[in-house]
Amino acid sequence: MARINDNYLKLKAGYLFPEIGRRIKAFTEANPAAKVIRLGIGDVTRPLAPAVLAAFHRAVDDLGRTDSFMGYGPEQGYEWLLDTLIDQAYGPLGVKLKRSEIFISDGSKCDCANILDIFDLGNKVAIGDPVYPVYNDTNVMVGRTGEADARGHYQGITYIPFTADNNFAPEPPAEKVDLLYLCFPNNPTGAVASKEQLQAWVDYALKHEAVILFDAAYEAFITDPAIPRSIYEIPGAEKCAIEFRSFSKTAGFTGVRCALTVVPEALTGRNAAGEQVGLNKLWNRRQSTKFNGVSYPVQRAAQAVYSAEGWRQNREIIDYYLENARLIREGLSAAGVVCHGGTNAPYIWLQTPGGLSSWDFFDKLLNECHVVGTPGSGFGPGGEGYFRLSAFGQRENVEEAVARIRKNLGR
Amino acid sequence: MARINDNYLKLKAGYLFPEIGRRIKAFTEANPAAKVIRLGIGDVTRPLAPAVLAAFHRAVDDLGRTDSFMGYGPEQGYEWLLDTLIDQAYGPLGVKLKRSEIFISDGSKCDCANILDIFDLGNKVAIGDPVYPVYNDTNVMVGRTGEADARGHYQGITYIPFTADNNFAPEPPAEKVDLLYLCFPNNPTGAVASKEQLQAWVDYALKHEAVILFDAAYEAFITDPAIPRSIYEIPGAEKCAIEFRSFSKTAGFTGVRCALTVVPEALTGRNAAGEQVGLNKLWNRRQSTKFNGVSYPVQRAAQAVYSAEGWRQNREIIDYYLENARLIREGLSAAGVVCHGGTNAPYIWLQTPGGLSSWDFFDKLLNECHVVGTPGSGFGPGGEGYFRLSAFGQRENVEEAVARIRKNLGR
Repeated sequence: MARINDNYLKLKAGYLFPEIGRRIKAFTEANPAAKVIRLGIGDVTRPLAPAVLAAFHRAVDDLGRTDSFMGYGPEQGYEWLLDTLIDQAYGPLGVKLKRSEIFISDGSKCDCANILDIFDLGNKVAIGDPVYPVYNDTNVMVGRTGEADARGHYQGITYIPFTADNNFAPEPPAEKVDLLYLCFPNNPTGAVASKEQLQAWVDYALKHEAVILFDAAYEAFITDPAIPRSIYEIPGAEKCAIEFRSFSKTAGFTGVRCALTVVPEALTGRNAAGEQVGLNKLWNRRQSTKFNGVSYPVQRAAQAVYSAEGWRQNREIIDYYLENARLIREGLSAAGVVCHGGTNAPYIWLQTPGGLSSWDFFDKLLNECHVVGTPGSGFGPGGEGYFRLSAFGQRENVEEAVARIRKNLGR
Repeated sequence: MARINDNYLKLKAGYLFPEIGRRIKAFTEANPAAKVIRLGIGDVTRPLAPAVLAAFHRAVDDLGRTDSFMGYGPEQGYEWLLDTLIDQAYGPLGVKLKRSEIFISDGSKCDCANILDIFDLGNKVAIGDPVYPVYNDTNVMVGRTGEADARGHYQGITYIPFTADNNFAPEPPAEKVDLLYLCFPNNPTGAVASKEQLQAWVDYALKHEAVILFDAAYEAFITDPAIPRSIYEIPGAEKCAIEFRSFSKTAGFTGVRCALTVVPEALTGRNAAGEQVGLNKLWNRRQSTKFNGVSYPVQRAAQAVYSAEGWRQNREIIDYYLENARLIREGLSAAGVVCHGGTNAPYIWLQTPGGLSSWDFFDKLLNECHVVGTPGSGFGPGGEGYFRLSAFGQRENVEEAVARIRKNLGR
């Protein structure tokens, strides 16, 4: 008799974005004429850069000829893509990596979720609140938690409040944990962390032999040179941190699928006997056995992101989104809405006007303004009373959404 | 202090194919002039079909324009691809599926591995021997087993011998198991199963409430109309089987990455309370939370495989590989080598001449004929004394490899 993984039954409701999708569908079916503007899910809208498209096409052509056909590639990614990342993505930051330390994958969501495979179930985990739901849900799914309490916090997880009081960049907890998730620029709050703030986390991790799971999916949006774009800019991080990066927001790859995870060779965990074991070898074994590499044309497209032309074109796209962020932040602030984030980050984290609950504000915005955002409470109970707007829309839609919201608020 | 997943340390040596890669690399570095022919790893060599290439290019173009840009797609795959599979892949077999029952992914290897996520660790698992190593290794990695014995069998797994005695299509075991892997056409033996043989497995699974994990990655190579291409051609299978299919061998997608998994809505497992729970919803939750869908252009290319033109072009490619299989099987049989498989399947499973061990024959073939195959023992101790040759090579290489081996054997 096949037994299911009962931990799945502990999960509350659906995953956040499918629930938003259901509410939008219900609204649009009831109001087919409404022009709905979506600033909810963090999905990009600008087409791929021409240099990236050209490389993508050339690679598809390669697959059409016997002499250039590509079958299975290395599970870890092609060396030319690894070398490009070492030289172009990490080199300028002063971060030196080896090929064997980078693993190309089809998405940061997958990597953030799958990384738990290589860790013991007994590890104590710390997660922010509010937070990208994948960190929390995947820990529930593997069985690291008990049931959820009334607020939606699961027994066994240490939740770290990311609040306006700590400027959405809290200090490490007083208690000792073994694994901890950090995401800067943050999803959903749009907050960034300074070198000093990250150093405090690295020092904490080194002291407790904890591993930091550092989600840097939005690093491309950092324009302030004083803010680190990689955790490895912090001394000692190579001994305590795994970093996740993505082409999704950096280069508009949400539908193309490419990401990378860095597991330094200096990073270790302990086995049951208390001996140090390199995490790089474990992740390599995990990827070799459970993954078969990223689509060859996609890797060629990703490589072109870091060509001189591709990089210049992509910077224009990122600047476009950052200008959207400014328009939202300044437009709504001028209407009296308290806004956080939106500089060095593509998300604006606003306090719901009039003290509405996050979902009530979601429904109000959808029904009255035909604008879709993301309820802050969808990112955890600490997000209640907040709301996330994404800067990834088309400019005219962003402008119209801001105008509609201001009109609705009477400002 | 971060603790590692100690189960990884139970795994023996490297995963099979990386080990083969290391030996080839050592040989070619020592013998740079040798022309090595690779019939080892099951990787295809023919370029993509023109109709598939054209669709791939059109989809890349879509990503270059604002009005046709595609961002995040459904984690489960686009409806147009699901509909194509329902109509073109399953319809002709008399198998009726719903969209919600098909999940598009980036590879069958991933799905075969990840499917364990939704099952309880306490399930009793049956695996063939010899077998595709991923089934075994992923069960070790999740912690379902004890240590390996001297032969390489892990405590806690029920191994089912696939031998010449049972024509590589054994009957269900006498003991009761909860999860069981079947692969037909089989990797590595090239054996196929008749309707009656599969019916016996379905009856067994229904009787014991077991779930069959049916790997149909090679179904496209079945030309005998009497042999089922899907487990769902067997009455009752929709209540006891998950099926994995792939575009890798069907359409040369080993470097492109696309596959599908079918989880029927009628399929259930039991929770801790003994209640029936639909596995489809669990897998949907797994994929929504830990996966972000397949690259949009890849899905368009996959759809084109089932267009009239694409299908005709792909049939030619499959016929080409089947002709390779015939050349290997008949050529080596004429030289006195006992060969199995190679009809309705792209693999030839041969008994090593002279009673050599599988790895000794591997080294002999590499060093004396400059031909790479796969040692049978790499698929489990039951494969010792066997050797797998793949039919996915270029024709001239296949012909030359057969000639070299025959010459080496003095026939």
